[in-house]
Parts: sequence; C-alpha cells; structure tokens
Amino acid sequence: MKEVKVLLKDDEIPRQWYNVQADLPTPMPPPLHPGTGQPLAPEDMARIFPMNLIEQEMSLERWIDIPEEVLEKLLLWRPSPLSRAYNFERILDSPVKIYYKNEGLSPAGSHKPNTAVAQAYYNKIFGIKRISTETGAGQWGSALSMACNMFGIECRVFMVRVSYDQKPYRRLMMQTWGADCFPSPSEITETGRRILADNPDSPGSLGIAISEAIEDIMDKEDCRYALGSVLNHVVLHQTIIGLEAHRQMEKIGVYPDVVIGCAGGGSNFAGLALPFVRDKIHGREVSVVAAEPTSCPTLTRGPYAYDFGDLAMTTPLLAMYTLGHDYVPAPIHAGGLRYHGMAPIVSHLVKERLVEPRAYNQLETFDAGVKWARAEGFIPAPETNHAIAAVVEEARRAKEEGREKTILFNWSGHGLVDLASYDAYLSGKLVNYSLPDEDIKRAKETVSRFPKP
Amino acid sequence: MKEVKVLLKDDEIPRQWYNVQADLPTPMPPPLHPGTGQPLAPEDMARIFPMNLIEQEMSLERWIDIPEEVLEKLLLWRPSPLSRAYNFERILDSPVKIYYKNEGLSPAGSHKPNTAVAQAYYNKIFGIKRISTETGAGQWGSALSMACNMFGIECRVFMVRVSYDQKPYRRLMMQTWGADCFPSPSEITETGRRILADNPDSPGSLGIAISEAIEDIMDKEDCRYALGSVLNHVVLHQTIIGLEAHRQMEKIGVYPDVVIGCAGGGSNFAGLALPFVRDKIHGREVSVVAAEPTSCPTLTRGPYAYDFGDLAMTTPLLAMYTLGHDYVPAPIHAGGLRYHGMAPIVSHLVKERLVEPRAYNQLETFDAGVKWARAEGFIPAPETNHAIAAVVEEARRAKEEGREKTILFNWSGHGLVDLASYDAYLSGKLVNYSLPDEDIKRAKETVSRFPKP
Repeated sequence: MKEVKVLLKDDEIPRQWYNVQADLPTPMPPPLHPGTGQPLAPEDMARIFPMNLIEQEMSLERWIDIPEEVLEKLLLWRPSPLSRAYNFERILDSPVKIYYKNEGLSPAGSHKPNTAVAQAYYNKIFGIKRISTETGAGQWGSALSMACNMFGIECRVFMVRVSYDQKPYRRLMMQTWGADCFPSPSEITETGRRILADNPDSPGSLGIAISEAIEDIMDKEDCRYALGSVLNHVVLHQTIIGLEAHRQMEKIGVYPDVVIGCAGGGSNFAGLALPFVRDKIHGREVSVVAAEPTSCPTLTRGPYAYDFGDLAMTTPLLAMYTLGHDYVPAPIHAGGLRYHGMAPIVSHLVKERLVEPRAYNQLETFDAGVKWARAEGFIPAPETNHAIAAVVEEARRAKEEGREKTILFNWSGHGLVDLASYDAYLSGKLVNYSLPDEDIKRAKETVSRFPKP
Repeated sequence: MKEVKVLLKDDEIPRQWYNVQADLPTPMPPPLHPGTGQPLAPEDMARIFPMNLIEQEMSLERWIDIPEEVLEKLLLWRPSPLSRAYNFERILDSPVKIYYKNEGLSPAGSHKPNTAVAQAYYNKIFGIKRISTETGAGQWGSALSMACNMFGIECRVFMVRVSYDQKPYRRLMMQTWGADCFPSPSEITETGRRILADNPDSPGSLGIAISEAIEDIMDKEDCRYALGSVLNHVVLHQTIIGLEAHRQMEKIGVYPDVVIGCAGGGSNFAGLALPFVRDKIHGREVSVVAAEPTSCPTLTRGPYAYDFGDLAMTTPLLAMYTLGHDYVPAPIHAGGLRYHGMAPIVSHLVKERLVEPRAYNQLETFDAGVKWARAEGFIPAPETNHAIAAVVEEARRAKEEGREKTILFNWSGHGLVDLASYDAYLSGKLVNYSLPDEDIKRAKETVSRFPKP
C-alpha cells in the first residue's frame, strides 16, 4: 500500500520559528517613519503592537523559541500532514511527484491561526485585554477571534461591509468564537461615523477597516492592533509550516525541486518557503515560486519601492513590491490575494532572485482547483488555487522536458466557505482580469514621492 | 509537553471492517418483504443495490476485508486523529479525561465519506455507471458525490427543495465534485412531476426525495441507489472509526469508561461504538451511550417494531425503534438526526441493553457546542453537539460522584456549513421541541399493522 501522508507526532512539532533575516546575503531595507523618513524605532510602534511582538518584528536572531503555551494550542491541529497527491499526479500525466502541506485542517480552515495564536499569546502576556483588527473576506478575522478566545482576550473585528453582508459564514465563525464583528464603516469609530455621514450606504474597504481598527485601540493602554500578514513577525510565525515540511521530507528521504505557495500578503508562501530558501542561500538547488493573480500582480509587475501598507497611510513605509497603496484590485474571488503590496521579506527575496514570482489568471486557477477537488477530495480556497495552477504549470513543463521533478506546495486553506466562487466558475460567470500598463505607470508615480530603498 | 493527539500512520489503518452480528448474544430479526411478510431474499434488493453490497448487508462474517482501492481513497484523510480535549476538560472542571475521534477532517467534513467511498467502489466493480440518492441537509449527498467522482461513476442527488434553496453550500460541494444535484420534487421523475402538478411550490421532503432517487434507477441495468445510514453495510463501513480509536487508545494504554456518539440513522454512533460493544459482549465493563434529540426521540421513546425506512413504504420492513415511517420531526438544525427510525443494528443493541440511549434538547446541545468551539477551536456540526451534550452530562455526573472517568466520543463532523444555526442560537432564536405523548401513541398505532419482531 502506498503511503499517502507523512505525519509528525505531537512531540516532533518544531520548537523554534525560523527567521530568514539571519541568513540573508544582503540586509533588508528597514521600515521608515513616514514623518521623518528615518528608520523606525521600536517605540514608534508601541501604541499599535505590544513590545514583545515589536522586538520579534525587528529581531535578527536565526531561531526564536515558540512558547510552550503557543505550542499547546497549535497542537490542536498541528503538525499538519504532508500528503502526496497521487490522484492529482495521475490526471496530470506528468513525471512529477507532488507533495502538499494541508493547512486547511485547522479549525478556521487555513494557515492563519498559526500566527493568530502566537499574536494572541504575546498580547496576553503583555497585559493586553482587547485586540482590534480588520478583515476582508474574513479568514484573518476568524482566526484571530478563535485565538483571542483561547487566551481570554476580547477581540473586535472590523469587517468590510460588503463582505459582512455577502459572506455571513466567516462573520458567524467569529461570533461563534465570541468576537465582536462590526461591519465597516461602523458607528463605533470617528472614522466610521464620518464616512457614514457622507455616505450611509458605503460598502467599506480594507483601508477604511484598518483605519477603524487602529483608531479603536489608539491611546488605550490595554488595547492593541493585530495584522494577519505582511509583517516580519507574522511571516516568522508561519515558518512552522516549512519547518514541519522540511522534517517530513527528510523522513522519507525526498527533497523538492520546486517549492510553491500563493502570495497575497506573503505569509503562507513564506511560511512554507523560508526553510527551503535557507537551503538555497547555502547552495542547495531548489526553485521557489510565488504564485499571484494577474489582476493583482504585485511581484511580477509592480515597482520595488517604499510604500505604505494601507490606504490611509497610517503604517510605516515598507520596502516592497507594490501596486501603490491606493490601488484597488479587481474583485477576484481570491480575496486574500487582493493586496497592493507584499511582505518586505518576500519582496526582498524576489529582488535577490531567490524567489521567482509568477502570475495566474482567475479562470486557470479555478480550472486547477476543480481538477484538484475532483482528484484529491479536498476543495481548495480560491487563493490556494493559484498555487495549484503553478503546480499544473510545473507538471506541464516537466512533461515537455521529460524530466522527473518533485514539487512541494502549500495547500493554504479549504474553500468550503467560498463555494459561491465555485458556483460562479462552474456556471461560466467568472472572468479574467488583467492590469492595464496605465496602472503600473500610476503605481510608479504614487511611490515616486517616497524615499528609495 | 502534553500529547494532544494520538496518530496512526498510513500503514496502521485497519484492513478489515468489523461486523458485530458475528458477536451478538441473540440474532437480529431479519428484514421482511413488505408484500409477503417473509424474510427478505438477496434478489429482492437486487434492483436497488449491487449484489456485492447486498451480500455484505446480509453477511454474518466477523471481519470483512477492506479492498485496497477503498483504503487508498480513505488514506486521503484517514486514520483520523484521536485527540484529547484538555481545554474542554478544563472548563468542565470535572475529573474526566475526554478523547474524541475527529471525523470532521474529511474532505466533506464528516464521517459520511467512509461509507460513500466503499459504496462507490462496490458499485463500480459491479459495473454500475450511475448512482442516485437523496439528501436532506446535504452531508450524505456531498460525500457520495465526492466518492462517485473518485471512481468515475455518475452521481445524481435529489435534495429536498427547501434545503436546496436555503443551504446552497452543500449543493455547491456536490456540483464542485461533479454530481448532478436536483431540487426534489423535480421534473425528471414521474413522482416529482406528479407532486409538482398538484403543488408547484412543494418544499419537498426526504420521503419524496427517496422515492425520486429510487424511481430514477429502477429498471435500469447499470444504475443503482445508495443509502447513507441505517443499513448494516453502511454501519459496517463506519466501524473503521472505532477500530482506529481502539488501536489508538491501546497505544496510550487507556480504555474508555464511556463511549458516546450522536444517533440519527445510527451510523456514526455505531461506527465508533461497535468495537467497544464487542468488548462489552465479551465481559469488559464499558458504558455505550447514543445521544439523540428530544424532538426525535426514536430510541428513548419510540416502540421497537417492524416499520418502513421511508415515508413512501418502498423499503423492506426493518426491526427498529421508530416513531412511525410517516412521522415528520420538528425542524431542528441537526438535520442528520431528523430520522423517524434507527439502524436495526443499533436498535437491537439498545433492546439488548448493550447501548444506553439518552435524549438532549436543542438548546443544551448548542450550549455544549459553543463551549466546545471556544475551548477546542473546531466548530462542531449541530448533530455532533448532541454527543458533546452527553459528554457534558457525563462530566457533571463524574464530578458529583467524585469519580475519575475516561470518555471517548465521536466528533462526527464540523459545522462550517451549518453556521446559520449558530447564528440562530447566539441571537436567541432557537427553541426546544418536545414530542407530545400523542405522537408516541400514534407511532404505536402506525406500526401495529406490521408483523412483530
């Protein structure tokens, strides 16, 4: 009988996160204070994040211990299995071996709880009583709701109103886990009230929701904000995925030729990829591919520049590939990939040519996702379908080249709460979006007024 | 670090199903032909099920080999972890150890695929090209859709129209897995057309859907029907849950004092319980508890009698606890527990006092389920909440008695596609239902015209 899954026992779970900054050939440009243009000091972020997470954000230590209390919660679903996709291999009819980390088995259905649990813990021991955050489609908001509840912290989620109304399931997850979920713009912040006064029917936006979440905790001693991707500490917490995968592949004596993840803010991609990027920095041959949507082609077409992480320009300036902080991506179903920027760590690795970005259009990603669901059973999230589209492309190349190849990818989440997107695809209502050159030109103009990395 | 999960490796998956009939102290009353009142012959079912499954239905062999092709598919998610619910134990503050089998990790989110895969396989090797079935809320229909697709069989699901309209997610799962899902009553059967002619707005019922599914395959050489619970072969396929759990508990040197499952048709309950019932038959001390809704109290209040499995009286007469084949249960959210009868195997064990039934009302089950979700992360299906309510009761008793106790229960499925029910509960809109004695009296009258078991 063929072995389908490689498991790690509870006591084989990684005890440390991996910080790639310790191994980078060239250092990353630091985040800048938007007022002074100077590198950010820890104190500059102290009203937004607890100091223990800020220290982690800035740390250059290679290995950072995972607290026992965090491990205890992660063990509810981790280590996640490394599975071999025999059935998908069969339909691709290509000389590839395909392995995937199944991050869809977490209670919230994606990789997001890996960092949510860690962030809730660090906030808790710093004495924080309430965390506020924003969420688009709801993956991050639901993960943080669960994690806050586990550590007895209040959680407020500002959810973009159009998603709040159209996607009730993720809101209901948050409420089941005891969080307060507000449609944004809301009546409970100054920002929200101002926008509603102008336009009572405002559908909201991620930018507005971020502003509301930050306003909600600002100047409150025991409240802080939390972010679900992009930042270094978030990426750090996700490396548990790649560290497990590394160990699992070692167990079966296999090493990947290609490592693939989808990239929106960059955390699930980096979470799987970084331990392999480390090998690559040390001379091992491995391709590392970040798959993004053609409608939001940050890495493949955006300029590398200092830019804000949010529309309202409240974040520090981050050195990253960006389509401009005021860019509004097309309404693709992979909501988690609709972000104008990209994690500075991932951006730096792309710039250093350690990671290769590729873009896939909406229809080919759903085509890949439906093929996957029919072969392997598990229905992928629309975001995950981008990684699967890259797997399909790798398999096609391998077949053309007649070359055996081992592929490892991050199956970042299930699509059970996103089935409406499959409905749209199967009934022929989905379309592709591409970005006019005009928009790239505009992005370059937007960032031209900021310092250069 | 405390071990949370006990895992089995792929090569430790059970290779045989367990048939409790080989160990029963007294034999089960056979199913009867409704026309003749005589025990059913295999040929009587040959137009409905493939002969290899009929043989399994009637087999008295203790161990039945699981075909390699079935194991290969089950390995996509099985063996499922046996987890210790430390966090839930903590909030119950009782001297109990709680272990659960997480059947929510399957692609369809419940235990249903365990038998769907087996049934699709046996149909396939019997030369069947299309399977038709009915589904209420959609758990069974989605599981069978996935399984049929894996073996290249067409699948038609007749879904009760009111669920089809109100619960689009499970229908979308079926369609994503390539099945044809029709709202029932439909235009594609004589039965459906007749009902629609009388009442174009008919909301449908499980009884109508069963009749449509059976009509759809009747007299077609290469089409058959499939059922997701109740029957012996379905229960048999589910015993893989309990066989795994048995092995997992052995690994850690623990044996349960109480084994619990929720019971609608009876298959997830029996799937976990039967290997422990076997121990009990052979003298080991263990309580086995079946948890059902007070609104559909088949085991706790129904008469034990011969009755039909469906409203339309198309099935054989089965010896079981029943509320009468024409009973329409209250609209509780645990759709999978809204069945008038109970698996003959489970009914027989209750009659023999090897299994103890208990009933829980809707509010206490959701109270237990929300507590669980907040402690352990995973959001349970409304059906599963009945098992959790029984766990809560056992823990309370143990505390009162000051007695340490080990509980094992079947976490039969997740509630991510049933979140509307949590919304209703959290916003105070859920109510309890109880059954008037009148209805029990009526049930006894209904079955009084059939032979006695």
